[in-house]
Amino acid sequence: MSGHIYIIGLGPGDQNLLTIEVATLLPNLTDLVGYGPYVQRVQVPDTIRKHSSDNREELDRARHALLLAQQGHRVGVVSSGDAGVFAMASAVFEAIDHGDPSFKETEVTVLPGISAMFAAASRLGAPLGHDFCAISLSDNLKPWEVILKRLRLAAQADFVIALYNAVSKARPWQLDTAFELLREELPLDIPVAFCQAISRENEHIEITNLKDAKASMGNMQTLVLIGSRYSQLLTTQQKTWFYTPRSIK
Amino acid sequence: MSGHIYIIGLGPGDQNLLTIEVATLLPNLTDLVGYGPYVQRVQVPDTIRKHSSDNREELDRARHALLLAQQGHRVGVVSSGDAGVFAMASAVFEAIDHGDPSFKETEVTVLPGISAMFAAASRLGAPLGHDFCAISLSDNLKPWEVILKRLRLAAQADFVIALYNAVSKARPWQLDTAFELLREELPLDIPVAFCQAISRENEHIEITNLKDAKASMGNMQTLVLIGSRYSQLLTTQQKTWFYTPRSIK
Repeated sequence: MSGHIYIIGLGPGDQNLLTIEVATLLPNLTDLVGYGPYVQRVQVPDTIRKHSSDNREELDRARHALLLAQQGHRVGVVSSGDAGVFAMASAVFEAIDHGDPSFKETEVTVLPGISAMFAAASRLGAPLGHDFCAISLSDNLKPWEVILKRLRLAAQADFVIALYNAVSKARPWQLDTAFELLREELPLDIPVAFCQAISRENEHIEITNLKDAKASMGNMQTLVLIGSRYSQLLTTQQKTWFYTPRSIK
Repeated sequence: MSGHIYIIGLGPGDQNLLTIEVATLLPNLTDLVGYGPYVQRVQVPDTIRKHSSDNREELDRARHALLLAQQGHRVGVVSSGDAGVFAMASAVFEAIDHGDPSFKETEVTVLPGISAMFAAASRLGAPLGHDFCAISLSDNLKPWEVILKRLRLAAQADFVIALYNAVSKARPWQLDTAFELLREELPLDIPVAFCQAISRENEHIEITNLKDAKASMGNMQTLVLIGSRYSQLLTTQQKTWFYTPRSIK
């Protein structure tokens, strides 16, 4: 008998940023699988078993979820933000693709969530109003040279750049190296925003420019948004906004 | 007296894909402003005035919303998907930046939504599991040469590419030209998905490859997702999935 895996995007943190679809589904699961802090964040009845695991164990976690589903469970695999963005959705499909053939009998449903980049963008104003890209700065899963090449091409394409996994204790030098490269390609006055823990209690936003941006402004909870040469700051009575116009000349 | 503008992402269409935040706010507005089909989609009490306008009138619409807010109204400016992605959020900030100085007194809140690309990705599996970009193919707001340059750089960077405004009656040749360019840069067997009206009653998905992709497979409600050279198709008992692995060698 095969159960069902639901790959769930929990959004950035605030319960109000769940979709109605996800909020309705969660209490009807039998098991929750995910990285510890995300599983603990979910408010569900005590009858639902929570299986927490460490970071960087995505494939093991996906296999565990598949085995639970094979026992007939209704398993929620949870990620922060949107599960399809540098998160568990790909891990589940990789585990099916390269795992036991019986995994291909599992029913899977993917439920989208508000990704970190769109949560951050909503606080800043409209930085993603024109063409943009998302790059994970972690070299755990791809070579560092590939990351640098992509950053340079993204700058040449004038994409607004959202950097995921931008700051890590294990690789504190990477973000500063990325800024150095971008300073070779882009005007020094374009806005750069450090967006920490959006919608959670320690939310903190710092806006600077490419000249002054430093890795020390962020931590492991920070998404970094780098404007294009068209991005603007706009100060109103309320606050300073960061937006990218829809049109370019 | 100044009111308040709420820039609202309605998600792809299904009411269950609204965030709780948006669903809670909508009945408490006084006015809704937006492109006709989006405004009509919103289920709110009859007491809330609906101001529909045509497509391509974003700046006029933003100014109209600002004038209503200045009269003390609580105005929702609605977009499909996420309002920050090729939608009304940038238009509102442009209207404030370049409009009457009193516009800078307006309070603004941006509420994120499930964007078309993440809704489509959830149906396909996990196409956006690795670095990706979003490009609007419309040359109403930027030169066509810029679009072609960005497409080439995106392909060279091996981004998965989400194409917004991919098909238009006014410019039916553009998407085929884009595919031709991408065929010069990428393997011909990478997956390409045409994702129409996700979560609405006429939802339709067609998966092909870069060699066979044709503009005639889409319409004005279609988001086109083009894989990177690492993207995979995976056929299970349930369906054929499209995913991009988290890691590259």
